[in-house]
Amino acid sequence: MRTLYHLWLSPFSRKVRLVLAEKQVEFTMTVEPVWERRREFLALNPAGDVPVLVETDGTVLSHSAAICEYLEETHPDPRLIGRAPVERAEVRRLVGWFDTKFDREVTDRLVTEKVMKRFLGLGEPDSRQIRTALQDLTTHLNYIDYLCERRDWLAGDNLSLADIAAAAHLSAVDYLGDIPWEQHQPAHNRSARIKSRPSFRPLLADAIPGLPAPRHYADLDF
Amino acid sequence: MRTLYHLWLSPFSRKVRLVLAEKQVEFTMTVEPVWERRREFLALNPAGDVPVLVETDGTVLSHSAAICEYLEETHPDPRLIGRAPVERAEVRRLVGWFDTKFDREVTDRLVTEKVMKRFLGLGEPDSRQIRTALQDLTTHLNYIDYLCERRDWLAGDNLSLADIAAAAHLSAVDYLGDIPWEQHQPAHNRSARIKSRPSFRPLLADAIPGLPAPRHYADLDF
Repeated sequence: MRTLYHLWLSPFSRKVRLVLAEKQVEFTMTVEPVWERRREFLALNPAGDVPVLVETDGTVLSHSAAICEYLEETHPDPRLIGRAPVERAEVRRLVGWFDTKFDREVTDRLVTEKVMKRFLGLGEPDSRQIRTALQDLTTHLNYIDYLCERRDWLAGDNLSLADIAAAAHLSAVDYLGDIPWEQHQPAHNRSARIKSRPSFRPLLADAIPGLPAPRHYADLDF
Repeated sequence: MRTLYHLWLSPFSRKVRLVLAEKQVEFTMTVEPVWERRREFLALNPAGDVPVLVETDGTVLSHSAAICEYLEETHPDPRLIGRAPVERAEVRRLVGWFDTKFDREVTDRLVTEKVMKRFLGLGEPDSRQIRTALQDLTTHLNYIDYLCERRDWLAGDNLSLADIAAAAHLSAVDYLGDIPWEQHQPAHNRSARIKSRPSFRPLLADAIPGLPAPRHYADLDF
């Protein structure tokens, strides 16, 4: 059986979980405490981070963009990166937006300050970092609203890896209770649509030890 | 004519310049002062960063990963992302390594501290940041040495986007004079091989106003 090494609040792990589920590829998961820098894990991925996917034949894949492109090539049904080159470029632009810009400005900051610092005993959360992240989150939600008002799905007419990357980041931030959904109706409605997909169910069942989800997290009518 | 909006020391712009040159795709370049957040530029790329490639028919492409995949699909000769899915995953893993990990730990830190802070009047360089970046650079160079000793090219038997991403970051850091080449012979020899390719020549001719390159930068026998 293929195995996904992951962390609950890693948006990159969440993205791969959703892609595997959308493509109905079976897998098991194992939590990897990346901060321990286990020798066996570094042998799989010298970068030392998650996600890492180990295929049934032992093939090791790491870096979420490489894993998602690999799954698209080996399990093309359903297509998640589009067909025409321009369409595929738009999907990848938005995936890059969330995995680079949104992550740096919002997800990584909030997860680091609100969870990892406490968990690893690295001191108090930096309230300035949290405030900046929440300000940037508003800018991102405005852009998501803008796209949702103009397109059926984030990158165009079909569900794509762009929607999945967005959902991966937004759901991690939502687990921390930080999304002002009521001020972003288009993003909220789109999020509700994604949350109701079967692929999303396992993420809604996530229960991180010592960090309970806010009440609305698993609620489809949040 | 297609136009590439770029910045001299942006490793992502350098990567796209090298891909265009390897594929012999003609283009002109224009420097984009992203810190000015020009309205016309934000209309091209709401993320506000470079590179942005505007095709002759007006198609706008942004985020370097999306641009490189697009060029691979529309100009497949020579192939830079490999053929078999596992081979392509290895190329993309290494591209991700440089564009995510190497950038965060080394390139972005050094360019920010040594160039952008002074240029934008944001205060003195933070010597602790620079020291940490140079320590991390050593770890990266050790890994590059390790790969160079085992493979003809970074991802395997052929020149690929992995070599180009590596060259893009290393050349930006080299422009700042920060690479201890003499302690990393395998990485040095590989770098010399890449520098001697015709695609690299325009990068060696880069002369950033107010920031002259160190003497060895354009030297093929550095």
